[in-house]
Amino acid sequence: MRVDGVHRRTIWLDPDGWAVGIIDQTRLPHDFVTTRLETVDAAAHAIRAMLVRGAPLIGATAAYGMALAMRADPSDAGLAAARAGLLATRPTAVNLRWALDAVCAALAPQPPHARAAVAYAKAAAICDEDAAICEAIGDQGLAVFQGAWDAKGGRGTLNILTHCNAGWLATVDWGTALAPVYKAHDAGLPVHVWVDETRPRNQGAGLTAWELGRHGVPHTVIVDNAGGHLMQRGLVDLCITGTDRTTANGDVCNKIGTYLKALAAHDNGVPFHVALPSPTIDWTLTGDPSAIPIEERDAAEVTDITGRTRDGRIETVTVTPAGSPAGNYAFDVTPARLVTSLITERGVCPATPEGLAGLFPERSAA
Amino acid sequence: MRVDGVHRRTIWLDPDGWAVGIIDQTRLPHDFVTTRLETVDAAAHAIRAMLVRGAPLIGATAAYGMALAMRADPSDAGLAAARAGLLATRPTAVNLRWALDAVCAALAPQPPHARAAVAYAKAAAICDEDAAICEAIGDQGLAVFQGAWDAKGGRGTLNILTHCNAGWLATVDWGTALAPVYKAHDAGLPVHVWVDETRPRNQGAGLTAWELGRHGVPHTVIVDNAGGHLMQRGLVDLCITGTDRTTANGDVCNKIGTYLKALAAHDNGVPFHVALPSPTIDWTLTGDPSAIPIEERDAAEVTDITGRTRDGRIETVTVTPAGSPAGNYAFDVTPARLVTSLITERGVCPATPEGLAGLFPERSAA
Repeated sequence: MRVDGVHRRTIWLDPDGWAVGIIDQTRLPHDFVTTRLETVDAAAHAIRAMLVRGAPLIGATAAYGMALAMRADPSDAGLAAARAGLLATRPTAVNLRWALDAVCAALAPQPPHARAAVAYAKAAAICDEDAAICEAIGDQGLAVFQGAWDAKGGRGTLNILTHCNAGWLATVDWGTALAPVYKAHDAGLPVHVWVDETRPRNQGAGLTAWELGRHGVPHTVIVDNAGGHLMQRGLVDLCITGTDRTTANGDVCNKIGTYLKALAAHDNGVPFHVALPSPTIDWTLTGDPSAIPIEERDAAEVTDITGRTRDGRIETVTVTPAGSPAGNYAFDVTPARLVTSLITERGVCPATPEGLAGLFPERSAA
Repeated sequence: MRVDGVHRRTIWLDPDGWAVGIIDQTRLPHDFVTTRLETVDAAAHAIRAMLVRGAPLIGATAAYGMALAMRADPSDAGLAAARAGLLATRPTAVNLRWALDAVCAALAPQPPHARAAVAYAKAAAICDEDAAICEAIGDQGLAVFQGAWDAKGGRGTLNILTHCNAGWLATVDWGTALAPVYKAHDAGLPVHVWVDETRPRNQGAGLTAWELGRHGVPHTVIVDNAGGHLMQRGLVDLCITGTDRTTANGDVCNKIGTYLKALAAHDNGVPFHVALPSPTIDWTLTGDPSAIPIEERDAAEVTDITGRTRDGRIETVTVTPAGSPAGNYAFDVTPARLVTSLITERGVCPATPEGLAGLFPERSAA
């Protein structure tokens, strides 16, 4: 999407044709800094230190990391070492393993001298495929937004509430939940986005607000507590979020707090949509969503907050008293009964086993 | 309540018998600092600059401010000037006006030389009455908690979730929502409190966690997003909050985000209690709760967060990107249908017109 008028992806090849450019997302939202990756170690560091984050972008960075590795040492030993090093950066990231498997499957049959070129081509294909999937989600969602706008009589503003960051910064381009927002904005729909700040990591206040602002989409940052009130007062026309994992039943595991917004949407008759690339559907999960394990993260993410001081320094401050423990549950599960529709690259469906089976007959039969 | 073993109120007379002591709450949770008020101007500043906050405590401070004023100038002119100066500090605080009216009604018929003594006595009575009301809420709530504990089979921990700060720091002593927590803890019930951090002003992370910790009550700070997940997983036995205003129908206006927790409690069969001193019941409100005006506050409360740096400085940091606007809605309305019971100093009742009328027949007949 655009950053102050210039189209950007989150990852690209530099003009020299081999070094990899990324946005250093640890510097957002206060500074827009790009970084040049020249080695597999630099790519691994970028993933580990979260210069890049978001499952699709992690996978894309790992793929280009393999390309950088093959440029330096295309031997079988070099290939194995690069794969192992990249895989260790974020052990639980499903897309990371998927991307590495895809690249390595393409490289293994090749003679060493051919591997670098194949790896670059495969990494580029992974990026293009991700962008295409996200853009398709945008087109599918645009139709949903257009319907909401028509239902509103085509007057005023289409007010959209989102939680966390499911934007282009988490993918290669377009994003998932924000893809329809960009499509609608670019198509001339008068959208306005309520951006949940999304404690504890503030991905809404930091990343979603930044990317919407740079692309020129009107938005307002709110605390996570505010959405229910806004819905009660008729100030939200629809909600849309991303998801980390969707079960075959249509239950949605997403950033902590998503469930509370879905409850409020349901209580106020506000549609609650979830945008997802189909690879995030977990077809093996068909039972009780409370069986989904929820990651507990470092309490310091709750007790400590990082931002910019008035004189421009980046500083971390503690908001809790010494001696008060904190709990940090990273995700929650929104039951399918609270989800109006699932917006995938292949189409829009109800959050039901039948809805998903209709769009993905080849998977649900498995 | 206790601060590291010493019983404290939020406001007291110093040993000299005339100066007024308060806790400087702007320094919490990082520093426990008391301040000595010697003039009515100092009392007004303490209210205006929020060294004291919470409706009951504001009223008590204003009452003692009148006493300090009468000590310096007990003339009719002095009385009028002191009243006007104190009233202007927080124009919308109902308790402030109520306390000033009560003190001034007692002072007006007195000759000037008698006024200081009467003002001190009236201020002390206001403080004692507030503490007594809050302690009575504590006793009423204790019975509710005991019932929940018995229903749980008297095993494990009684897990309580609260939002914002409705503790002794907001009153003279005991608090409202936290009064039953202190009563239960002191009675030996194994309570544990999930403390919502309560963005944007962090009264949970800052004040509730501090006062629970100093009194020795086990607690865990969580982000406002987490409560729904905890309730889904059976980790919350009951919720209890305070309220700024309760309608005659039982609708509850309280800190933004209360509604979301009440929705989650309802969805998971968790009791949701609201503790209130009866003066916060607005008997004139009997209709649509969406008619209640909701204060919008400075966006900087959302964009900027204050805390303690690792080297001990108090610093404010901005978490949003430059150019992103923020909205700051201070309260929301929880419909009575989501409230299990109202816990007042006079008893516990359902959140219905009949429930309130049963406890307060003299008011509901008006």
